[in-house]
Parts: sequence; C-alpha cells; structure tokens
Amino acid sequence: MATRTGVLPPDEDGYELWLRYRTLPAAPRRRLLASARALLAPRPATPMTDAVVGELGRAIGVLCGRAPGRAARAAPGTIVLATPQSQPALAAACGPLEDLGDEGYVVRTAPVGRGRAIIVCARHERGLLYGGFALIRALQLGADPRSLDLRSAPALSLRLLNHWDNLDRSVERGYAGQSIWDWWKLPSIVDARYADHARACASVGINGVVLNNVNAASEVLSAAWIAKAAALADVFRPWGVRVYLSVRFSAPRELGGQATADPADAGVQRWWADKAAEIHRAIPDFGGWLVKANSEGQPGPQDYGRSHAEGANTLARALAPHGSVLMWRAFVYAAENPRDRAMQAYDEFVPLDGQFLPNVIVQVKNGPIDFQPREPFHPLFGAMRATPLILECQLTKEYLGFSTHLAYLGPMWEEVLRSDTHRPQAGHTVAATLTAQPRAGMAGVANIGSDRNWCGSHFDQANWYAYGRLAWDVGARSRAIAAEWAVLTFGNDPAVRDAVVRMMMASREAVVDYMTPLGLHHLMDTGHHHGPGPWVSELNRPEWNPTYYHRADRHGIGFDRSTRGSGAVSQYAEPLARRWDDPQTTPEELLLWFHHLPWGHPMPSGRDLWHELAERYDRGVRTVQRLRATWRRLQGHVDARRHRDVSEHLAQQHAEARWWRDACLAYFQSVNGRPWPEGVTPPAGTLAEYRAMRFAFAPGRGG
Amino acid sequence: MATRTGVLPPDEDGYELWLRYRTLPAAPRRRLLASARALLAPRPATPMTDAVVGELGRAIGVLCGRAPGRAARAAPGTIVLATPQSQPALAAACGPLEDLGDEGYVVRTAPVGRGRAIIVCARHERGLLYGGFALIRALQLGADPRSLDLRSAPALSLRLLNHWDNLDRSVERGYAGQSIWDWWKLPSIVDARYADHARACASVGINGVVLNNVNAASEVLSAAWIAKAAALADVFRPWGVRVYLSVRFSAPRELGGQATADPADAGVQRWWADKAAEIHRAIPDFGGWLVKANSEGQPGPQDYGRSHAEGANTLARALAPHGSVLMWRAFVYAAENPRDRAMQAYDEFVPLDGQFLPNVIVQVKNGPIDFQPREPFHPLFGAMRATPLILECQLTKEYLGFSTHLAYLGPMWEEVLRSDTHRPQAGHTVAATLTAQPRAGMAGVANIGSDRNWCGSHFDQANWYAYGRLAWDVGARSRAIAAEWAVLTFGNDPAVRDAVVRMMMASREAVVDYMTPLGLHHLMDTGHHHGPGPWVSELNRPEWNPTYYHRADRHGIGFDRSTRGSGAVSQYAEPLARRWDDPQTTPEELLLWFHHLPWGHPMPSGRDLWHELAERYDRGVRTVQRLRATWRRLQGHVDARRHRDVSEHLAQQHAEARWWRDACLAYFQSVNGRPWPEGVTPPAGTLAEYRAMRFAFAPGRGG
Repeated sequence: MATRTGVLPPDEDGYELWLRYRTLPAAPRRRLLASARALLAPRPATPMTDAVVGELGRAIGVLCGRAPGRAARAAPGTIVLATPQSQPALAAACGPLEDLGDEGYVVRTAPVGRGRAIIVCARHERGLLYGGFALIRALQLGADPRSLDLRSAPALSLRLLNHWDNLDRSVERGYAGQSIWDWWKLPSIVDARYADHARACASVGINGVVLNNVNAASEVLSAAWIAKAAALADVFRPWGVRVYLSVRFSAPRELGGQATADPADAGVQRWWADKAAEIHRAIPDFGGWLVKANSEGQPGPQDYGRSHAEGANTLARALAPHGSVLMWRAFVYAAENPRDRAMQAYDEFVPLDGQFLPNVIVQVKNGPIDFQPREPFHPLFGAMRATPLILECQLTKEYLGFSTHLAYLGPMWEEVLRSDTHRPQAGHTVAATLTAQPRAGMAGVANIGSDRNWCGSHFDQANWYAYGRLAWDVGARSRAIAAEWAVLTFGNDPAVRDAVVRMMMASREAVVDYMTPLGLHHLMDTGHHHGPGPWVSELNRPEWNPTYYHRADRHGIGFDRSTRGSGAVSQYAEPLARRWDDPQTTPEELLLWFHHLPWGHPMPSGRDLWHELAERYDRGVRTVQRLRATWRRLQGHVDARRHRDVSEHLAQQHAEARWWRDACLAYFQSVNGRPWPEGVTPPAGTLAEYRAMRFAFAPGRGG
Repeated sequence: MATRTGVLPPDEDGYELWLRYRTLPAAPRRRLLASARALLAPRPATPMTDAVVGELGRAIGVLCGRAPGRAARAAPGTIVLATPQSQPALAAACGPLEDLGDEGYVVRTAPVGRGRAIIVCARHERGLLYGGFALIRALQLGADPRSLDLRSAPALSLRLLNHWDNLDRSVERGYAGQSIWDWWKLPSIVDARYADHARACASVGINGVVLNNVNAASEVLSAAWIAKAAALADVFRPWGVRVYLSVRFSAPRELGGQATADPADAGVQRWWADKAAEIHRAIPDFGGWLVKANSEGQPGPQDYGRSHAEGANTLARALAPHGSVLMWRAFVYAAENPRDRAMQAYDEFVPLDGQFLPNVIVQVKNGPIDFQPREPFHPLFGAMRATPLILECQLTKEYLGFSTHLAYLGPMWEEVLRSDTHRPQAGHTVAATLTAQPRAGMAGVANIGSDRNWCGSHFDQANWYAYGRLAWDVGARSRAIAAEWAVLTFGNDPAVRDAVVRMMMASREAVVDYMTPLGLHHLMDTGHHHGPGPWVSELNRPEWNPTYYHRADRHGIGFDRSTRGSGAVSQYAEPLARRWDDPQTTPEELLLWFHHLPWGHPMPSGRDLWHELAERYDRGVRTVQRLRATWRRLQGHVDARRHRDVSEHLAQQHAEARWWRDACLAYFQSVNGRPWPEGVTPPAGTLAEYRAMRFAFAPGRGG
C-alpha cells in the first residue's frame, strides 16, 4: 500500500460504529452535492419518517459538507422518499413493489423533470427506513449517486438481538462493560445512547431487541420494569425496533402471588393474560416474550409434569390477542440423560412438532452443544417442519476469546445458514428451513455493553454488523459483508480494506485451530469459560466436564456419536447420517465431533491424528502471528488510537493462543504418552502450571 | 439573559469534563494568537514536560484556532516553561520560588526581548504541570494573556482520589456505571480513558489515586494485580498522579499462606516487607497503602489483640524503606459499644496519638458518623496533634441522592475545612490542623465510573472539580470554584454562569432540608441507602437503625449527645463543648444532632419544633422546584443534549425530594400523633405505601 505522508487520521474511539460519516473526496463529493440538494418525505411526517430524514440529513451533510434542505416537490437533484401513496408515478417507476413486504425497499436514480432524482421507494415507512440506510451505506461505500439501483427485502420477519442483561446491570457473558440499560435511572432519565443503539440496529435491519437475560428475573414483569421497558420502546419505535422481554416461567408464583406456576392452572393462565394485557397497554407494539425453561436450573413446565409445548402454549395464548409472539428456547438438557447432551434438544422437541400454537416460535442454537468455535448445524433445523424456528447465534464471544480475540463470526454463521439439512430434500439449507415459515427469524446474543466502542473491541463491532446484515439477507456472503464493514469502519483506502478483510476472514478458523481443532469442543475452563481446561473432569454433572466431550485416553480421542456410539449422527437426514457415520467420509473439521479415533489414525495430510492435532494448534497460533504482522503494516493508515488498541488486543490474543495450544497439547500428551510431534513448538510451561491457573474476577459471570 | 438567535450549541456528552476547549471569541482569540505563537520547554524533555507541552498545544490550538509551534528560545509572543535551571533570568523575574515547593508555580506575563512572553515558572516539572493547567484555565476563563499574574502552591502534599472499585469492576457506592479500570484486560490492553482520567486529575491538582475499594480483596496484592497497577501507574506518571492500593489486613494469611495475620508475627512482617519491595520494583514511585481495619467486619489488628497503632506500624515499617506511606482509616465502630457510635473513632484513636510511625497517616472522615448531608466536623481534627491526618470526604453521593440529585458539595467541604476546632486555640480550623503537618492531605471517595460523562450526571462533575481545587487550596471559596466550573463546563455566557452558580450554591442545603434537616441524620433506607427509611428499627446492630439516630417518640426527637446524654459533645474543645451542650446556643442546623427535644420546643422562627421540621422539609422541595425553573430558562443557552439530560435528572430529584419529605413527615406524625403543620404540603401517599417500597436492584452495592 502507498506510504502515507502528512498528518495521521484523527483519533477515534469507535463510538460511531459503521455510522461513521466522513466527508467524501472531492469528485464524489461534488457528484453527491449535485444529487442531494434537498429531501422530500411523505406527508404527514411520522416519527419514523422524521428519523429517516434526520439520518439522511446528518449523513449527507457530512459526506458532502452541506446538509440537504427540505424539498417542496420531487425535483432533479433531490432525494425523494416515496410510497405508492405519496408518489404514485415515481413508485410505479420503481417496478413491482408487492414482493417487498413492509420492510423491503428500492433505491434508484430515476428521471424526474429535466434531470434525475434519487428515489427511495417502499410500500411502508419501515421500508423507507431501511432504504434510507441502504442509500447512506451505498454512498459511504462509494456508489455513484447518478446510477443507484438497489432492491432488497428481508426473508426473515424477526431479526432480533438478545441482550443477556440482568436487572442489576451485569451482563451474562458480557465482555464490553456493563449493560447499556441504566435500569436504575429509567424510565425518567433516558440516556441518549439508547437512540444510537436503535439507529445502529436499524441501519443493519435488526427490528427487535430482547432487553434482558434469558436467565430472567421475575421482577422484569413488575409495573416498575414495564415502565422502564416502555421508555426504551418509545426511543426504539421510530427506528423500527420492537421491544421484547425474557420472562421467568415461575413469575406467577414469585411475582404474582399465585400458589403455583403450573401452566394448566386457571389462575396462572389468567395471571399471564393480565400481564400480557398490562404490557401491551404500556407498549402497544410490544414484541413478545422469550423463555428459557427447564434448562440449566431454570423453572419450566416439566416442574409440573407438563411438556414444553403445554408451557409455551399457555404463555402464547396470553399474547395472541395482542399479536405478539412467544419464543421458546430449545436449549435444554437434563441431568439424568444417559446418552449424549448433543442429542437432547432434538429428542425433546421433535415429538412436539405440530403441538405449538401459531404464535409460538422455537429458538434453536446454531449447533447442538453451545456456541462452540465450530459445531455441525443443529439437527432440529429441517426436522421441525411444522414449527417456525429462530436460529440463535452468539455475537458475544463466550467461547471464542471474549472481546479480546479477533474472531469475525460472519463465516461461521454463513457456514450454518448454508448447511444442507437434506430435509425434505437435498439443497434445503438451514436458511431455507427458516424462510419456509412466514414468522421465523434469527436471534443474536448481543455483544454490546457500556464500553465506549460498544463491543469491547473495534473488531467485535463487525460481528454486530455482520449479524444484522445476514439476518436481513440470509444468502449474503460474509466476505462481502466484511469488505463493507472494513470500509465503513476504517475508510476507503482499498489496501486497508483488503488487509482488514484478510484478517477477518482468517480469524475464526484461527480460533478453531488454537482452541478446538478437528471437531473437538467444550475444552474451556469451568464457569468463566476463559482459557483451556481439557483436564477438568470433577464437576458434578458429567456433561459439564471437558473430558466428557473429548474422551481422550492412552489410545485415542473424540466423542463417538456414530451409530456405534451415542448415535447422534442418526438425528441428521441421509446422506449426512451415513456420511458422518464413517470417519473416512466425515469432514476433517468435524472428525472428533462424531468419532473416537486412535492417536495413530492416518489423516489426509499423511500425518497421524496426534501429529495433525498438534499441527492444527500450531497453525492457529501462526495465523494470529500473521494477523499481527498485517495490522502492524496498517500503522499510519488507521488513526493512532484505534491502531494501538487493536495492536494491544492482537498481542493479547497471540499470548492466549499460545496458551491454548501449549496447555491443550501438554495435557493430551500427558494422556497419550506419545512423543512430541516433530516440527511443532513445544509448550512454554508445564501442564501443572496451566492446571494451576485461576481467574477469580473474569467478566461475564452475570448477576 | 439575552435571547439566543441562530443555531443551538452542538450536542455534548460530557466526556471532556472541564477540559473542554472551545475557540475563543474574536478579540481574545487575536490576543491569544499574538501571545502564544510558540512554546518553549526545558531540555531535555521528560514524559511530564511532554505532557504539559502536549496539553498546552491541544488547548491553545483550539482556543485560538492555531496550535503553537515549538520555540527555539524565549522570545516575545511565546509561552516559556521555565525552571531556575532552564531559564535563570526569567525564573528570577518570577520572584522568590523557595516557598512554592515542588508543586507550586508562577504564571505571569513578563518582558522578553522587545516584547512580552507568558512565563510558567516552577522549581520542578510538577510545578510546570500545574502551572500549565492553571494557564489553560485562566485563558478559558477569559484572562488577558498580556497581563497574567498567578502564583499558587498547595498546602497539602497528599491530594488523593479513593476509588471504591472492586476487582470484578463493580463499584461500592458507585452511581456512574462500573469501574473505569478494565482489570480483565490490564496490563496488556490499556484503555485510552485512563490517560484522560489522569489529565483531569492533574488539571485540578489531584496527585494520587487509590485504585481499589477500602473493603479490599487480598488478590490486589497478587503478582497479576501488581502488574495491572503498574500499567496504570505508567499512564498516570507523566501527569503527576501516583498509584496507591487498598490492602486487606488478612492478606498475609489469605494470599501469602501465612498461618496468621498477627502484626507481631515475624513471618507476617517479612511478608509485608517482601510485598512492599515487590510492588516498588514494579512501581518505583508507588504511593502507599490504605487500610480499613476492624471496621464493618474487615479484619484488623484487634483480631489478634493488637492496637490500631501496632497494626498500622507493621505495614508502615514495610513501606518506609521505599518512602511510601501507610494510610490508616479511623472509620471504626465496634458492635459492643454501649454509648454512641459518633464517639468511637475519637475514643479509639486519641489515646494512640504519638504512637504511629512517621509514615503513617490517619484518615478521618469529615464528620463523626458517615458522610451525611450535614454533620459537625470530626472531633479527631485538632485532637490528634502528633499524627498527620487525611480528611476523607465523599464525592460519590451515597447519602445525597446518588448521581440523580444535583448536590454541589463544595459548600459542605468548605464548611468542614473552615470549622474552628479551637484546638489548640480559637481560629485553628480543620484546614489548619491538616496543614500543620508536612505530610497530610485530603482523600475524596471518587464519583467516577464508566458512564460517558464520568460521574453519572453532568453536575456531579463539579464535585470532582471542586474537590481537587479545594484540596489544592484549602482556603478557596466554593462559590468561586462553582463559577469557574460553570464557565468551563457550559461556556462564557455570564447569565448562564450566574444561573448555574445559583443552582449549585442552593443545592446542598436543599438536600439537607428534604432529607435530614435540623441536625437529623442517618434516616436513609437500609443497605442501598436510597430514599427514606426513618421507620427502620429491626436491624441486628442498634447503630444500623435510623431509629437509633433520630430517637423520635411521642414526646420528642433527636439524639442527646449533650453531657446529659451520650456526652459526645465533650469530645470537642471549649467553647464548642459548652455551646453545643445547650440547645439554646446550638446552631439550628445541628440541633437534633446534639439534642433530644420535645416536639413543642420553640424555635427561633416562632414555630414549634414539629412545625419547623415540616417547614424545612417543604422548603427543600421548593428549592428543587426552583432549580428546575432556573434550568428551564437556560434552554437554548446550553446544548440540547445536556439540557435535556439535566432536566430529566432534576425532574427525578424533584419527585424524590417530595418522597423524602412525605415519607419522613408521615412517619414522624405517626410517632408524635400531632396535627399536620399548617401550610405544609400533606403527603401524597400513606406511610404504609412508603414503608412497602423496595429497591432490589439499586446500584452501588459493590461486589
């Protein structure tokens, strides 16, 4: 890349996210000035059209150095926000709009009078909102305002962020400070940051926010908290973001004074109905409830001998009159299951398919365990055909290095969405199982906190961005999204963009390599989930222990989920079940997920399994080293403050990657007693040292 | 004030604090341009002179729109940072410097060559640092750069912030988000915010920061945490801010593997000495340790039958070879004391006067109870004459409305500092008892957190500012400090400044009125200390209960601390002891602190005590109403974002002031059975409603 001369870019703290408007270079700036002299919006104005107009004014005012005025009519050189009602002729020129739904948009440059105007056209003001942001993004990315031609509509109607924020402002698995919700001061004191949160969500198409942790406190349904949620809903509404709440199944008893929380109890049912009505009075467009039940100690219908469907339907019935939804998590595992934790959600929920009320949506994690660096797709996708599903993924990197490690998750989510379920037939991807239902969606566990840069690190912003963009367009490519984000975040220098994209695209696989290569999983230390703990074997429940998952011994390693083992492979459709049943036809990256193999097992590389495993760990560390080198070369091309901050994070990631490699390999060698694989860096410390490490004040434990 | 025309001031989020540099109006801008064309600093440059030069460049670059260059020599139109070594002639022109110490400075405009230059002169680079900030402040406040003449040196050598920040990033009594110390990422990842914290401290003269809570975790002395503290010390050092740590008396046992923490044990003594050496290797200019021992459940020397002096001296002996200090808190109270909690610190510490090693400093709260809205000064001031003392005050408003209420604490601290101890004779104020010792100081419990505006509310920044300014100059006037802060924070409009100063100067007395008028104290609800709880009487220890302090019954109210009661009054020197022993000569604002009086007691106003009490509560609420009205008139004169934010805080304060008044008066009436005082607003709710209020997720409980 060209050597920079002159002054460095001014320091930035990351607060602006990708809505980081900067004045364009001279030529595109002049073009935009001529194309965006004024703005015309439908009359009468609404809070939402005011929001779009305000954002466009702010963005264009900076991009071309002059804020557009308000236009009296559609004229050349204006931006027109058009609906079929407000501008029938212009809307007609935008092609058929029926398939756009309420949220889709067209953005194009079209002849108007004796010139051309930029038309943002949609059937509904929500489409104008998203079209407005699409226009801004296109201009930031360098599109020519004289020849715009965008058309997009989301395939999923629910594109949600799940905040795991507690009422004491701690955040479970939060690595970016504390909750941005200042519950204590709400509803009277409304932080200006909430509106920026909503803007950021809207700009990438996120249309709902679950405010609180799925490990929910009953108090969130108290009158005091409903008022707080309502104040947030008022801020979010103009940005098309609806508010949802996580609720605790036992709330009727704990908060409501009922004798039971049995979903078959008439008093309980009435309590939920009254509560739904109370919330909808305060928040007319309230989105609905999210429930974690009979999972990891949470109360649920099984406490009363009822099924998940009976439990979900009781709550759903309370919400139905108001048009809101009940999201029920499929992340369940019971202490007494003798077989394989990976199989439990499927075993539990497939028999219930068809028993849920229409406004119930079952929320399924991307894989069958728990947000590991790599898992096969969850077998419920494709298997639950009568039930709308939400794909839950985790933006906050509980298992991928907190906010310290650079790990761009776009490729992981793309991998899941594009996984072929073969149900009902080949080509039916996870994405297709979602979009087959009119009311399905994605939910991303938020990585947002009170840190000034929102996400704890600058690169973690990319995960928020990519999540939104993929939830809007499940067919999008993570590399293209990375390129967008890189430009929006670090500017238009193609060399910077390409370097940043290279780093991002290599990053997740690096984490897989240095943490859990070849299909290994759940090797992290206990509780805080920071760092390696493959030796942990003494926890109360078998499936809390890493040894349960890797099953390494003197002879071999891996979890046998073939038909000769737990049989989890049979939860997948053919030909996957057959393919994954045989080590020879199982992809290397899932090998030890499905198979227990001898250390000497020959691998495609020609190495044996032990050597290959070590080589993967080493490769992960080398990749991080390369990320550091790439970033170092960007010095002077990125402002000093962000450059230093990212450098420090990468240095820490490098140290922790080495730690993962060294601790895991030292442990596995202690188990298999084999010689150290040739060419692989030996551990810096002893196994005893790694085992002795303790992290008493790790973040993310929640309240 | 004049009506504003044209655009509103741009929105601000408060991050810049009072270091909020804005371009000056045309005339002063031209004057400054001519006076500050270039900067000259002593050679060789040091991190500290670089810091001053950088700050001056940043400030002047904005104030007059052009950053000064670097001067090769002292010339007309330059700013010269001068020491007697670097610029003997200029330094001589600044008058005698001996009495300035290492931190004092002179800032003056002086003839140089054929013109004039601005001289910042000091004996030591620390003086240049403070002089540099004094120059910036003077210019912000509108001083003419052609006729500067400032001279100042601090009377106290220790001007500290005490962070009550826990290692899990919670903050005990923190109402501004979580700790700004991101312990988890330290020492590798160093938030740019730390340097801004140090700048802000340096700008008001604060020269030390205790990083962690006095309720200390042993782990802060672990190698991992010493490294984190060292990384912070590296950031703070150029800004003249030394790092201190709170330590737990039982750390030798808990962390060090000793069998005991008995200060007389040789192994324990060795452990402390080794630990002091280890810290000083990592932080050569480490400031010292702060200890809370045998207080509120903390371990201490009395656990081993040793005195506070024996405990303090053991730790002090470990620090002495390194030149650092041991600060020992006098905030102690024992469960078994039968008399009066207010008397315990005095009873315990006065007999120890003279027994402490020279590097021990006893840290005493401003009053004998605990940071109440109003207390008499602590009787230890003046009574401990052989021991250097630190005056501890609380910036974070544990008992004055958290960060929600506007309460400018400058007048409170001024009141304490100017209180006449009459020891050894009349005129010997609390301030004089401090400055009588060469190594004494002030400690302010920080009100800083991760909130973008640092303090949770814009006006709470004034308490950080005023604390620093008063610690630097114990004779300063809180009104003048308020006027400075108002201009630095909200700009140079005199009408805005005067309105803001009026609000600030009325605010603390308003809180006293609506919470605890006439000498009442400790009426707050339990644990979280939010809101009124005068009815609380069932807690385990008598002195945890508000009823212990107000002693209201059918006949009267107040704590009899006269010679006929607990005798606390005798801990003060004559003539205070005699004056405060008699209700007739006790100032009204301390009346019920020292006396239990019948409800019908005639007050100077002509009202009886019950009526006067009610009238004070009502007056407090009316004052807040007036603050709101004053602030409302500033709309358009203050940027919209900060104006709205302050408005919302004031509205909440108004509601909570009414709540305090109504709940307290409803309770006291329920006790005394007297008719409602005429002319006083009756309560909006019933006593039962107030008593039933619960606040489960109140902030500030710590970890």
